[in-house]
Amino acid sequence: MTEKIYQPGEHYNYPLIIKKILNTPLIYSPDQEIVYRDKLRYTYRDLNVRIQRLANGLETMGVKTGDTVAVFDYDSNRFLEAFFAIPMMGSVLQMVNWRLSAEQIIYTINHAEAKAVIINSDFLPIMENIREKLTTVKTVIVIPEDGSVPETSFTIDAVYDEMLENASPEYNFPDLDENTKATTFYTTGTTGDPKGVHFTHRQLVLHTLSCSIAVGSYETIGRFRSNDVYMPITPMFHVHAWGIPYIATLLGVKQVYPGKYEPEMLLKLIVKENVTFSHCVPTILQMLTASPAVKQFDLSKWKVVIGGAKLSKGLAKAAKDMGFTVYTGYGMSETCPIISLSVPKYNMTDLDEDQYLDVIVKTGLPVPLVEFEVVDPDGTPLPHDGVTAGEVIFRAPWLTNSYFKAPDKTQELWKNGWLHSGDVGHINKEGYLQITDRVKDVIKSGGEWVSSLDLENLMSQHEAVAESAAIGIPDEKWGERPMMIVVVKPEYEGKVTPEDFKKYMKAASEQGKLPKYGVPDRYEFAFEIPKTSVGKLDKKVMRKMYQ
Amino acid sequence: MTEKIYQPGEHYNYPLIIKKILNTPLIYSPDQEIVYRDKLRYTYRDLNVRIQRLANGLETMGVKTGDTVAVFDYDSNRFLEAFFAIPMMGSVLQMVNWRLSAEQIIYTINHAEAKAVIINSDFLPIMENIREKLTTVKTVIVIPEDGSVPETSFTIDAVYDEMLENASPEYNFPDLDENTKATTFYTTGTTGDPKGVHFTHRQLVLHTLSCSIAVGSYETIGRFRSNDVYMPITPMFHVHAWGIPYIATLLGVKQVYPGKYEPEMLLKLIVKENVTFSHCVPTILQMLTASPAVKQFDLSKWKVVIGGAKLSKGLAKAAKDMGFTVYTGYGMSETCPIISLSVPKYNMTDLDEDQYLDVIVKTGLPVPLVEFEVVDPDGTPLPHDGVTAGEVIFRAPWLTNSYFKAPDKTQELWKNGWLHSGDVGHINKEGYLQITDRVKDVIKSGGEWVSSLDLENLMSQHEAVAESAAIGIPDEKWGERPMMIVVVKPEYEGKVTPEDFKKYMKAASEQGKLPKYGVPDRYEFAFEIPKTSVGKLDKKVMRKMYQ
Repeated sequence: MTEKIYQPGEHYNYPLIIKKILNTPLIYSPDQEIVYRDKLRYTYRDLNVRIQRLANGLETMGVKTGDTVAVFDYDSNRFLEAFFAIPMMGSVLQMVNWRLSAEQIIYTINHAEAKAVIINSDFLPIMENIREKLTTVKTVIVIPEDGSVPETSFTIDAVYDEMLENASPEYNFPDLDENTKATTFYTTGTTGDPKGVHFTHRQLVLHTLSCSIAVGSYETIGRFRSNDVYMPITPMFHVHAWGIPYIATLLGVKQVYPGKYEPEMLLKLIVKENVTFSHCVPTILQMLTASPAVKQFDLSKWKVVIGGAKLSKGLAKAAKDMGFTVYTGYGMSETCPIISLSVPKYNMTDLDEDQYLDVIVKTGLPVPLVEFEVVDPDGTPLPHDGVTAGEVIFRAPWLTNSYFKAPDKTQELWKNGWLHSGDVGHINKEGYLQITDRVKDVIKSGGEWVSSLDLENLMSQHEAVAESAAIGIPDEKWGERPMMIVVVKPEYEGKVTPEDFKKYMKAASEQGKLPKYGVPDRYEFAFEIPKTSVGKLDKKVMRKMYQ
Repeated sequence: MTEKIYQPGEHYNYPLIIKKILNTPLIYSPDQEIVYRDKLRYTYRDLNVRIQRLANGLETMGVKTGDTVAVFDYDSNRFLEAFFAIPMMGSVLQMVNWRLSAEQIIYTINHAEAKAVIINSDFLPIMENIREKLTTVKTVIVIPEDGSVPETSFTIDAVYDEMLENASPEYNFPDLDENTKATTFYTTGTTGDPKGVHFTHRQLVLHTLSCSIAVGSYETIGRFRSNDVYMPITPMFHVHAWGIPYIATLLGVKQVYPGKYEPEMLLKLIVKENVTFSHCVPTILQMLTASPAVKQFDLSKWKVVIGGAKLSKGLAKAAKDMGFTVYTGYGMSETCPIISLSVPKYNMTDLDEDQYLDVIVKTGLPVPLVEFEVVDPDGTPLPHDGVTAGEVIFRAPWLTNSYFKAPDKTQELWKNGWLHSGDVGHINKEGYLQITDRVKDVIKSGGEWVSSLDLENLMSQHEAVAESAAIGIPDEKWGERPMMIVVVKPEYEGKVTPEDFKKYMKAASEQGKLPKYGVPDRYEFAFEIPKTSVGKLDKKVMRKMYQ
């Protein structure tokens, strides 16, 4: 791409493109560190050179403007390099969810028409099984996790670090149109084929700016600041780790990438590298707080945004008791993802512990430039009374424009100029959104909606409960009745009965925490709760199991 | 404007427009206060209603999409209301510098083709003199500063508060194209006619987002946070008070507007309303720190960005000794205005006082999305060595695209796709910009450049000096020689001689603070330094006086 020649008087039309994000840390904190486990440690200055080498390497391998490059990797410096280099050269970064089935992986790569694949050697076995079914991939670049490429039956075109070493350290990244597609990945619903969402440079830059303000400038708990140390604990393949690596880079903070998620290793990294800001799903936080090792670690400076599933009040209290800060973040694959954060407002200065926990487990307040409403089936906005629930709809500058090559599904997503989330919730008079269910998981008993998330949240506060799920099961009289599937903590096994839980829920109802018709009749014990590949409760499977 | 009808699947193309900024405080802090001196106090909720009333009022008065509305006012809630209502309805806000001469005011209003004028009654005398020369203005709306409209010889079409009272409190602000012109005002150079700069909705929104991050999220001194209390002390007509009212509104902070600038009243407001964040020019800060009243006030929580002219080390030390925080902000009318802020970097943790002061008086580091370089006359970037000076050039998403109806002047502003600032400066290896002069004020002695800002900064540190200016005067041998014009502090009058200053500057030169050829030969005492209407040293006038 040749540089534009300007005529006298002609101004520069500044595009909102990813390469512009990188300018700031290179001036503010060029010597700040990027760390990959205990394996690699380099500076933002080095990151900048490696991004240029990666772009040159990919170009040498035949990757062109507009081509899609699929990346299979753990959370690592390589993934961060790909977050920048691939979009900056005008190509599209596809983040592959390696927890999907081989069939689904084939589907997503072929559907995205990926031309090249960058793959961690740990995932080569998956690749070997599906290589011949990949119809568009021409080039395979391997990242040897342990330094040497393992034996494999198929052709590898390049080895990641060798490719970088051999590539030129200078790449003149073009000034792209800000509406150029930058990233794509596939959402994994419980029904049908995965759907391809995609985001432009403009969308990612605006997400980065607004969310930096939301997590940084609002004077509240858990702020993300330029003297924090960042470590993601939601996979980078999952909605670009919530877009937070871009924010971390803009702020020029020290970044720590943990590779695979092993509780003790994560805890050790947090302490060793002084990690102060992370984000993860409740399951992982549960795993960490339940780990016997956790007591040896001082986590008092750690701030964690919890998303992906509801942060229960029980888990929030456990974190608070252990001395670190948690609060809710909310979004979807379709929304880049951040929509809201749940923190107390500037004037909520005299909350007691219970009120404080009630605030931080809400779905949250919209970040700047996000608008949300709850609507009835006709699309009419419902009152902000904290009770009246409807489907949650969004506007923001960073929502996916469509599902890739799926106009039918896009028609369901975008209606009347609003993105329809498929989530049910209500908004209170303070403006806090509370998601109560997925539209398709809603339990309707005697014509009344029962919130499965409310039920699960209440159960989480019972001392014997490790995890639970609420589903609706058909009922002749009421249409549907709620039932709970419960995983009991090991130390309580055999010591609690379904009747105990029913009593507990009845008591909660009597305290006004649940309508009377919402008290489940049935409580089933289970060893684990079925989950989707990204860790969400798989209610479709559960409904089948217990119907 | 009718609402767009969306087809199924058609997404909402989110525009970056000013009305979107207002959504956030209405959710986060609707009950937070906006204060006008001791005269008025209302909430963001009220602000939102008043903005809608103002738009309806203006529409009733015949203001249409695309029309320009000129505002003459002190810093007030009315001006804040105009910052939002006028652009949000698709009209253009013209901010009038009432310190200009009547001739210049006529020129700027006619040149901008303003259709309506909103004017504080204090400025009616100016208006009476020029009314018949205004060729485009059809409507005049008066703000009676003291409640009642004073006697005047000409027709007033409406009174501001009555117009609002009579207007509907609901206005359906359109989703404008983000490239719609939102604001305009005129720069007042020392030569030629004032030049009209203008900014679009997109430019103002991006300025607001990036600058919010720069002043809020970077962990450094003087941060602007949502629990701060804001009061501008640079006029709202001057580059929209540096765009900071938009940032303050996004953050939902308490805002205090002081009207006219009287030192004791400003100090009282700061203490009474708990003001913690302001911005002003050195002259005003000087006035405040020199005020006998200042000792009665606790300013320890006050953070002040200093711009408009160089923050001298002497003044920075005075502020530090008084216990409040100051640092440099830099920009120009053409740049919306913020380009840089000068604060220590995250790793500058062990600066002694002298080093700290050296950092905060620099011109600064670019805010996110700003790029600057210094170039030689051919446009070639110069090394970042902290010494090699050249013209400073910019790129950012918020630079004026052109001077309104002045293509010749635009050709000088925009060259090779960069905005040419007319400032001379250098960049050091840490990335800090230091402006040393205006291109046209540069002193060239024996072929070497002498920085007039360096000279003024050194003089500011002499105990007897209240203010000073350096200019170049013709010299047969050297081409030009620097000379100083000095205002001596009252208590030193008659106690210092030009020879004392020359000794002082020679000593500074021997300490390596100034090249030998930079020591001025001539020192002239003056009662005041000639300034332009926005308070900048008027060197053109001085060169004429002392030639």
